[in-house]
Amino acid sequence: MSHPVTTAERKPLPESVVAGLQRLVGARCELGESVRRQHGESETHFASVLPDAVVFPETTEEVAELVKYCVAQDVPIIPFGAGTSVEGNTIPIHGGVTFDLSKMDRVIEVNSSDFDCTVEAGVRREQLNEHLRDQGLFFPIDPGANATIGGMASTRASGTNAVRYGTMREAILSLKVVTPEGKIVRTSRRARKSAAGYDLTRLMIGAEGTLGIITEITLRLHGIPETVSSAVCSFETLIGAVDTVVESIQMGVPLARVEILDDAQMRAVNQRSSLNYPEKTTLFFEFHGTEAGVAEQVSIVSDLAGANGGGEFQWSNRPEDRAKLWKARHEAYYAAVNVRPGAIGWATDVCVPIGRLAECIGETKKDLETCSVPACILGHVGDGNFHVIFSIDPDASDEMAEVEIVNGRLIERALAMDGTCTGEHGIGIGKQEWLVRELGDAVEMMRTIKRALDPKNLFNPGKIFEL
Amino acid sequence: MSHPVTTAERKPLPESVVAGLQRLVGARCELGESVRRQHGESETHFASVLPDAVVFPETTEEVAELVKYCVAQDVPIIPFGAGTSVEGNTIPIHGGVTFDLSKMDRVIEVNSSDFDCTVEAGVRREQLNEHLRDQGLFFPIDPGANATIGGMASTRASGTNAVRYGTMREAILSLKVVTPEGKIVRTSRRARKSAAGYDLTRLMIGAEGTLGIITEITLRLHGIPETVSSAVCSFETLIGAVDTVVESIQMGVPLARVEILDDAQMRAVNQRSSLNYPEKTTLFFEFHGTEAGVAEQVSIVSDLAGANGGGEFQWSNRPEDRAKLWKARHEAYYAAVNVRPGAIGWATDVCVPIGRLAECIGETKKDLETCSVPACILGHVGDGNFHVIFSIDPDASDEMAEVEIVNGRLIERALAMDGTCTGEHGIGIGKQEWLVRELGDAVEMMRTIKRALDPKNLFNPGKIFEL
Repeated sequence: MSHPVTTAERKPLPESVVAGLQRLVGARCELGESVRRQHGESETHFASVLPDAVVFPETTEEVAELVKYCVAQDVPIIPFGAGTSVEGNTIPIHGGVTFDLSKMDRVIEVNSSDFDCTVEAGVRREQLNEHLRDQGLFFPIDPGANATIGGMASTRASGTNAVRYGTMREAILSLKVVTPEGKIVRTSRRARKSAAGYDLTRLMIGAEGTLGIITEITLRLHGIPETVSSAVCSFETLIGAVDTVVESIQMGVPLARVEILDDAQMRAVNQRSSLNYPEKTTLFFEFHGTEAGVAEQVSIVSDLAGANGGGEFQWSNRPEDRAKLWKARHEAYYAAVNVRPGAIGWATDVCVPIGRLAECIGETKKDLETCSVPACILGHVGDGNFHVIFSIDPDASDEMAEVEIVNGRLIERALAMDGTCTGEHGIGIGKQEWLVRELGDAVEMMRTIKRALDPKNLFNPGKIFEL
Repeated sequence: MSHPVTTAERKPLPESVVAGLQRLVGARCELGESVRRQHGESETHFASVLPDAVVFPETTEEVAELVKYCVAQDVPIIPFGAGTSVEGNTIPIHGGVTFDLSKMDRVIEVNSSDFDCTVEAGVRREQLNEHLRDQGLFFPIDPGANATIGGMASTRASGTNAVRYGTMREAILSLKVVTPEGKIVRTSRRARKSAAGYDLTRLMIGAEGTLGIITEITLRLHGIPETVSSAVCSFETLIGAVDTVVESIQMGVPLARVEILDDAQMRAVNQRSSLNYPEKTTLFFEFHGTEAGVAEQVSIVSDLAGANGGGEFQWSNRPEDRAKLWKARHEAYYAAVNVRPGAIGWATDVCVPIGRLAECIGETKKDLETCSVPACILGHVGDGNFHVIFSIDPDASDEMAEVEIVNGRLIERALAMDGTCTGEHGIGIGKQEWLVRELGDAVEMMRTIKRALDPKNLFNPGKIFEL
């Protein structure tokens, strides 16, 4: 059994509204159950709720027309990218029409001399990086899943490269947004910085589609580094691995990626991908820079690893070997869920100040020993961010409740260390009470902004908070 | 004559309100003209407008009590740091009470292992860096003036180090804010990243005190680099200097600082500080890193400079020499204004995508040749951001109008290149029409947010926009 979802009272979509949507986008308004089901399911542990219809706009102008129509008819609007979010962020719990932006997948322009590009919201990150490769550029944000850029903006995604290159908050220069009034606005110009008025760009990033629909994104890009080198290193203890990372960061080493996988996660990865890594806490590193710069970074980090009980570094310098290494890492979530065939995954996500990270992961590991549900720890450890992935038996009625309690203790622990209940997954429907615990009256400010910009509460209603 | 300022109709502060303020803060409510004048003057070209009173709160709780009282009495509230803003951002054009936060100047905590600290809003950046030095840490944002951290947050300041370390947008982890309701909220936790709800931190950064008062700031810090090296290099042509920077950035050189001063600005600097730099377009560089890393950066940049008509690099590696070099740069604004004794300064500020920077500065330089008012160009050229500083004769009635026209052409030029009308000075009262030109309907979204959070329009009213 999936985690139950509280739905709002909903009226069926009137025939006349369906006809109105079809007038605007013809056959790109889908009513069939299979399409609706694809847009009502969650990547993780939440039960499905189907939207009343799914529309597939092709332009920002079409999005604006659809928005005006839906708002006039009081119909909820749920923006949708690749559906890879994990806190139920796109589940249409108030019903309404899902706006699937996957047909808006054009790379509009690349300004290679400015190190930026503008893309439609439905472009996926792998597609973008393929497009950019010939120009010696790349887009660093990598949440694991092949998400859309619009979805990544809306959840303020980050992932493996954030320790060096920042999150979507830093990666975005400007957005084109359709407002709840159906206006098309651009939140900023293409300059690297600006002090012109309120930072609407950052307000929309992480708003989970509750304040409007992002249709175009202007992104900062980076030059593909002269030298890229990846390595894997196993540790005798979890704390030794975490300390290696914390000390590297404190020494100013500009690690491009550093991921922690605990012993349980390594077992799961070996099992899924037929690999034979030692089944101990392991760090996956990537170093970017000039040849001399990378050599200097590697020398510092391998010394620290040695001093903290780390073994030899296994290097992957050829692109195909690196791809294999990171594929294993990217599949870690699916590996962790599938330690029990047919299991439901629950991926939680906290982030703490890095000085508290060893303590937070250590206490969590101890807590997981008391939990009857298999769980792996996996983290973007350079940011202080880590996940616990539970593998829940859908037929065991008490496992979901047990995980809920363990997850609650994890979040309490992170909050007590001045951390956050979500480093990168967002609030969605899964963490609303925790948001209030974390930020108190600041949540009232958020509600005030929501009410002002979306007075009918039609944009992804019931996400982040119920009004 | 200073630039005239449009003031709103204002009622004198009733005796009863003065008594109420005095009940809350006693003698720390000042009514004397000299104190009021200090808080009604602008750093640049705007005429003075005096607040009705100035209060000097000592704690966040006191700010909250004062806010509740002023809001109940419909009295405008103007937050004030060091008064170094340049677009009239703190001029009380609707009258009211200026909240001078200079008594809130405590460094609350430094978490050296997390590379962060929390300070009260009245802490000045030089004070903070002195406090941090012994711990091997520094706070990189440097707008030139010895501004307060609260003021820098409120104008989204940046300055000379932003090319490497980002602006206040990136430097701030969390804020404590007194809302227009008089509530004390914290906008975020101390974790490096979070996806927990709307980004209120970034909304407050750059809001110029129109949405509440920032009273505490948690800042990201950086380790003092192993090697710091500064250099000055003169160029035959302005374009050669700009191209050197653009090519360095495009090659991924992590310049810590790179400032351009045109020939007029160098003349002004020599004159003010009795120096003898060549009076040509000049770049001031600073390189941060390991010894090997800095050597590598220097080698790339000096090759590029040589290829673009640059002369020898003059090095300043000893801290006292570096301090002297950057003092000359920091005083460039005063030097530029004082090329005519007794002149009024007008410092404008645009930022364009870096690929358009050479063209934008080149056209501006040509335009300035037609202007009868002396002007210097000075810029944080690694970000695409530069200033023109005019030295206006207060007795010449037509100079202010002439500068207004030249400034307008500069901003039009920047906007046509997809740039912004302000890279770091903010909108204040000086750039409100330009904000609308730049962002169109997005400004309506800003007004909606302002009306929702400050329904009586009492927080720094008339800044960024009139409602």
